[in-house]
Amino acid sequence: MASQTVPQATAERLPLYYRTLQQLVANGKTRISSSKFGELVQIDSTTIRKDFSYFGALGRKGYGYDTQYLMDFLKKTLYQDELNRVILIGVGHLGTALLNHNFLKNNNTQIVRAYDVDPKKIGTKVSGTKVFAMDELAANDHHEIVAAILTVPAAHAQEAAEKALASGIRGFLNFSPTTLNLPENAYVRHVDMTVELQALIYFLNHSMETKNS
Amino acid sequence: MASQTVPQATAERLPLYYRTLQQLVANGKTRISSSKFGELVQIDSTTIRKDFSYFGALGRKGYGYDTQYLMDFLKKTLYQDELNRVILIGVGHLGTALLNHNFLKNNNTQIVRAYDVDPKKIGTKVSGTKVFAMDELAANDHHEIVAAILTVPAAHAQEAAEKALASGIRGFLNFSPTTLNLPENAYVRHVDMTVELQALIYFLNHSMETKNS
Repeated sequence: MASQTVPQATAERLPLYYRTLQQLVANGKTRISSSKFGELVQIDSTTIRKDFSYFGALGRKGYGYDTQYLMDFLKKTLYQDELNRVILIGVGHLGTALLNHNFLKNNNTQIVRAYDVDPKKIGTKVSGTKVFAMDELAANDHHEIVAAILTVPAAHAQEAAEKALASGIRGFLNFSPTTLNLPENAYVRHVDMTVELQALIYFLNHSMETKNS
Repeated sequence: MASQTVPQATAERLPLYYRTLQQLVANGKTRISSSKFGELVQIDSTTIRKDFSYFGALGRKGYGYDTQYLMDFLKKTLYQDELNRVILIGVGHLGTALLNHNFLKNNNTQIVRAYDVDPKKIGTKVSGTKVFAMDELAANDHHEIVAAILTVPAAHAQEAAEKALASGIRGFLNFSPTTLNLPENAYVRHVDMTVELQALIYFLNHSMETKNS
């Protein structure tokens, strides 16, 4: 499969391209140039053309990209043509925000169950998703679940991840501000608010220096 | 300044490197090889060496990296040797989670004030940060504020961003699931939970295919 040689940085940009194409198609835009597309996603067009080149001829010189075709292609590439079931561990403010977010709206990802230690939350539903006791986590069979979203306090993240792993889950979207120690067959993606803020501040200062020089 | 030629993908990895180095230094680790460092950050060592090469000789062949030196270097590069003041707009679940997160703990970023429309929240403090009325946003002088964190519902994001812009802010960390239309001198960094989940699912499926082929 061609995508096996796709660099990680390219792969990480695909969901952003996909989301932007969904908006373009929804707005009735049938084609777009790489430079115009670059403005929308705030990535230079050279990088965009390079990214798409890994997947063969997706655009034509002088014509640009067929938005519907490209959207369909990325949908398949990102496995968004099938339903991806995930669970969420930790129904605090962040967990509740993610449950309210409703991933299903624009894509095929669904939080099918949530877990928490708080007896007041267990048995309730948050935005339609039922909250179960943490004790049930390791006991449940989660081999059909593609990933667990971790929104527990840092001190409990490792233990929660191990329980999820024992239930058959090997993908983790970790929002807890700590590094997880998991076996090699597990895949962790860390979402770090501090990292995002630092990147923003870097680019802000950097762009000011470039403009002033 | 050398960093002006740093690719965006490299710049985006710097905060992750910095965070990991902070942990290594805190744990008393004085040096580390690029391959071992690569395992920790889950990025291949070739990419890491390439990233650091933009900043000159930061490591030595056969020795690896001096963790303290590299951490100090990145601290300065990421402007973490000065206090970065930000504001937060929208004290819902996500906003509250970010206020509780306490950015100051490990770095020099501080949410100095929050804004919301809810009369029950206005005038209260969340984790020490005071909540002001949205009406005050455009009226306040925010030229000393480096960025605004947007955690309002999608329908209110554009209006909130425009008010912040009018008060002197030009950096935005946008958690609202919508695209902002702002003038060229504004810089927006979009944090999209859907994008993060899709990237995770891509890498999970991709790594399984690689292993099975």
